[in-house]
Amino acid sequence: MNKINKPALLLALSLNLAGAIQPVLAQDASTHAAAIADAMPAGYRDWKLVSVAHEEGNLNDIRAILGNDIAIEAYRSGKLPFPDGAIIARIAWQYVPSEENNKAFGREQSFIAGQPTNVQFMIKNSKAYASTGGWGYVQFNGGKPAHMDAHACYACHVPVEQRDFVFTRYSP
Amino acid sequence: MNKINKPALLLALSLNLAGAIQPVLAQDASTHAAAIADAMPAGYRDWKLVSVAHEEGNLNDIRAILGNDIAIEAYRSGKLPFPDGAIIARIAWQYVPSEENNKAFGREQSFIAGQPTNVQFMIKNSKAYASTGGWGYVQFNGGKPAHMDAHACYACHVPVEQRDFVFTRYSP
Repeated sequence: MNKINKPALLLALSLNLAGAIQPVLAQDASTHAAAIADAMPAGYRDWKLVSVAHEEGNLNDIRAILGNDIAIEAYRSGKLPFPDGAIIARIAWQYVPSEENNKAFGREQSFIAGQPTNVQFMIKNSKAYASTGGWGYVQFNGGKPAHMDAHACYACHVPVEQRDFVFTRYSP
Repeated sequence: MNKINKPALLLALSLNLAGAIQPVLAQDASTHAAAIADAMPAGYRDWKLVSVAHEEGNLNDIRAILGNDIAIEAYRSGKLPFPDGAIIARIAWQYVPSEENNKAFGREQSFIAGQPTNVQFMIKNSKAYASTGGWGYVQFNGGKPAHMDAHACYACHVPVEQRDFVFTRYSP
């Protein structure tokens, strides 16, 4: 016990009794988020494909969801929750018509990926991100970290808590 | 010259003069197509992502274009033509709305991948597929080879001959 700051420990314990241990974990998560937010996970563009989607409205994008090996293995095994170390990447591009493709098809029907919009990551670390369901949430705009409220991300993901807070299903 | 069938050589040469060497190459291509058409290229679902697209109309799908390592390297280097051995896979799924996502977004805007439709491959072999621009074209429905006319595929790809007959651009 000599190496432990006793007053701080007592403070933490008393905070815990008051249900206020959450901010301590949130602080840990912030530290981790800051660490990963400096740069995108190395090699994410080489990760395997989970699935694809299109969002209309303000987003107006077409997107690919990729997973690192830990995430893909978990997806394919169907076992939940995702283990620590799993990272899911969501890349998005502007949703644009392809006149070139339309000519080949003989009708207006083809939409392709235009300029990149942003890239988001869900990073599983059940301890560091305990206050947001075990997942850290980060976004990069033009390769640079964007300031995000991970708790806002988490709040939207709560409806799929039974799938470990992950919306995207694996597409075979 | 002793080991060469002289009448056959003379016939080939005379056919060549008449521009009829093409069917000989087409026959080679058919043989190769039959060989690759028995099964999908191993591990294609693990290949890296080239881009994504959505087709309306009768196709009504959302699709991902993947490439084997040779294809991805060629895409990223920007060098054309694609070298022999390059394979590009186009996976497609039914284009379906996601009520789950729409609830999270608070509006009807989200479309995701449903059931798989079919998988197509472009396989580069400049000799075997000389009659179709150096690419073999095959399709699999439910994992089983579909009977396709590679020349019909090729005809649609001719407008992008300057990109080595490949429509899809790499999305960073």
